[in-house]
Amino acid sequence: MSISERVLAGDIRAASRLMRDIDDGRPAATRELQALFPRTGKAYVVGITGSPGAGKSTLTDRLIALYRKQGKTVGVLAVDPTSPFSGGAILGDRIRMQDHATDPGVFIRSLATRGNLGGLSRATGDCIRVMDAMGRDVILVETVGVGQDEIDIAQMAHTTLVVVVPGMGDDIQAIKAGILEVADVFVVNKADLDGADRAVRELRSMLELRHAIKAPPMDHDAHHRMVMAKAHGLPVEAPVQDPEWEPPILKVVASRDKGVDELVAAVERHRVHLESTGERKAREQARAQMQFVAILRERLLKSALARLERERGHLAEVAGRIADRTADPYALADELASQLAE
Amino acid sequence: MSISERVLAGDIRAASRLMRDIDDGRPAATRELQALFPRTGKAYVVGITGSPGAGKSTLTDRLIALYRKQGKTVGVLAVDPTSPFSGGAILGDRIRMQDHATDPGVFIRSLATRGNLGGLSRATGDCIRVMDAMGRDVILVETVGVGQDEIDIAQMAHTTLVVVVPGMGDDIQAIKAGILEVADVFVVNKADLDGADRAVRELRSMLELRHAIKAPPMDHDAHHRMVMAKAHGLPVEAPVQDPEWEPPILKVVASRDKGVDELVAAVERHRVHLESTGERKAREQARAQMQFVAILRERLLKSALARLERERGHLAEVAGRIADRTADPYALADELASQLAE
Repeated sequence: MSISERVLAGDIRAASRLMRDIDDGRPAATRELQALFPRTGKAYVVGITGSPGAGKSTLTDRLIALYRKQGKTVGVLAVDPTSPFSGGAILGDRIRMQDHATDPGVFIRSLATRGNLGGLSRATGDCIRVMDAMGRDVILVETVGVGQDEIDIAQMAHTTLVVVVPGMGDDIQAIKAGILEVADVFVVNKADLDGADRAVRELRSMLELRHAIKAPPMDHDAHHRMVMAKAHGLPVEAPVQDPEWEPPILKVVASRDKGVDELVAAVERHRVHLESTGERKAREQARAQMQFVAILRERLLKSALARLERERGHLAEVAGRIADRTADPYALADELASQLAE
Repeated sequence: MSISERVLAGDIRAASRLMRDIDDGRPAATRELQALFPRTGKAYVVGITGSPGAGKSTLTDRLIALYRKQGKTVGVLAVDPTSPFSGGAILGDRIRMQDHATDPGVFIRSLATRGNLGGLSRATGDCIRVMDAMGRDVILVETVGVGQDEIDIAQMAHTTLVVVVPGMGDDIQAIKAGILEVADVFVVNKADLDGADRAVRELRSMLELRHAIKAPPMDHDAHHRMVMAKAHGLPVEAPVQDPEWEPPILKVVASRDKGVDELVAAVERHRVHLESTGERKAREQARAQMQFVAILRERLLKSALARLERERGHLAEVAGRIADRTADPYALADELASQLAE
C-alpha cells in the first residue's frame, strides 16, 4: 500500500511519516497529498493562538478531553516556529498532553518548519489535510500568535480562538493586536488572576474601536472580495472580518477546567453561524484558492528555475551576475514568464 | 523626471512616494525599482531586532546620531507588522526620532505591509533598495523580532543586532530563541537594570550550546550551500551561521548613551570581517538570489493566473471547483507549469 492509502485507512505511522516529509519539504510528499486531496474537506478546524505563556497547551488539552467526551476523534497540530534548534518540536510532542498518549482517538503532532516565504503556513495547511484525510472530526491547530505566518495559519481554521491572559504588559498586548483581526472567539485564560475583568474590558473596547474605524460596516460582497484578495496573496486594504459575527469574549481557567464547556459551545455557535450564512463555503473557497496559488507558485518556480539552468547556467551563477549588477533580475523574470503568456 | 530619476537625485518626496507604492503593493513600483536596480548595492545595512520593549527605537536614535557625527547619511526603516490598523506606521513616523526631523541627512520611514506569503519582507527589501539608490551610506532596519518575516528581514542586513533586556521572563526569551541564529552582535540594552550580567551569561551559554550542537563546526562550503538553499526558499536543515564570527555581547544603556560607541565599533569590526573573509560577497549573492527568486515567483504567478483565466475561467470559479473537489489543484498547477518545461 502507498503512504496515502495507509493514511486513508487511518494508519498513524504512515500519517506521521508523511507529515515529517512535509515538514522536511520533501518533494515526494506532494504526490501523496495529491492522492489524499479528494478525501479532504470534512474536518472542522479550530485555531488556538496567543502569546507564549497564555496557557494554550493546557487549554488545548482540555478541549481534546471535551471533544473526546462528545465521541469525536481529534487531531492536534502544535506549530512552533520559535524553537531554536530543530529538536524543539519533537521534544514538544513528548512533553505535552501526556494524558492522551494512549488514546487512539487523539493524534498529536508538532511542526517547526523554518523555511522562508510562507513555508511554515504551507506545511501547516498540508498537515491539516493529512489529519483531515485520516478522518479526524476536529483538528486543533495551536500556534504562537505573533508573526505573519501565524496570522496565515489562523486563517486556515474555521474558528480561531485568540487566547490572552490578564495583566500582561502593554507591549505584549501590542504584539497581539495583529491577530485581533482573525479572532472569532476571545478567551481570557487564567481568569482567576487579578485583572481578568480589565482584560475583558480592553478587548471589548478594541472591538468597538474596530467598529468605529470600519464604519460603515463592510457588506458581504466587499468582505468576500477581500477574502479572495488575501487568498490570492495580494495585499489587502483592511482586515478580513466577518461583518455578521460579533466575537464573544469568554473567561476561562483551563488549568481548573472552568469555562471550557462554554468555550466549546461558542465554537459550535460559530460553526452554525458559518454554515447558515454561507460563510463556511466562502472560507473553504478562499482556502482552496490560497492552497492552489501556493501549489502553483511552487510548481512554476521549479519549472522556471530548471529552464533558467538549462539556458543561463546555475542559479548561483545567475545570482552572482545580479549581485555584480551585470544582469537585471526584472528582465530575466519577464523573459522566463513570457512562455506562459503565449 | 520619472520617480526613479528623482529618487536617484536624492528627492525625499519621490522616495517617500515610491516606498508608499511598494508598501501598498502597486504594480507601478516594479518599473521604478527596475530603473533603480543598477544603482543599488552600496549602502551598509544594519538590522536591529528584538522584543517589544527592548528599547530598539532609542538605540536606533543613538546610532543615527553617531553615524551622523561620522559624516554618514542615514536611512531608517521601522518595520512594524504588529500594528493593528493601517494607521499605525504613519503614527510611528511622527512620534519617533523627533530629534532628527530637520536633518536632511536622516530619512526615516515606517513600513507595515500586511500581505501574506513574504509580502512584508519583500516590501522591506525593496524599500532598502530605494534608500540605497538615494545614496544613503548606512541603512538601519528596525524590526520586532518575533516571526519568520523578521528573521527573513534580519538576513537582508550586513550586520544584525539582536537587542535584549535584563529580567525578561522565560517566555520572552523563548520567542527570541528563533532570532539567535541571525545575530551578528548581541546588545544587552538597559544594562543598568538588575540582571544585566545574568542576561550576558545566558546569551553566552546559548551561544556555547549552539557550538556544542553543531560540532564539528560547519566548513565554509557547507555554510555557503546553506545560505544558497535559504535564498532559494528551500527549507534549511540548520541555522545559517557564519562559522568564523563569534558574536560579541555588549552592554549598552541607550537612554544614557552608554556603550553606543563600542557598539558602532563592533559593527565596524563585523563589516571588516565580512569584507576580509569574502562573506560580504557571499551574502550579497545570496540576497541577490533571494530577490530574483521573489521577483520571478511573482511574475510567473501573474502570467500563469492570466493564462488560467483565459483558458479555465476566473480564479475564484476555479477555486470553487477545487473546494468542491471537482478540480485537482495539483494537476492544474502541473498543466500551467508545463509550458515552462518545454
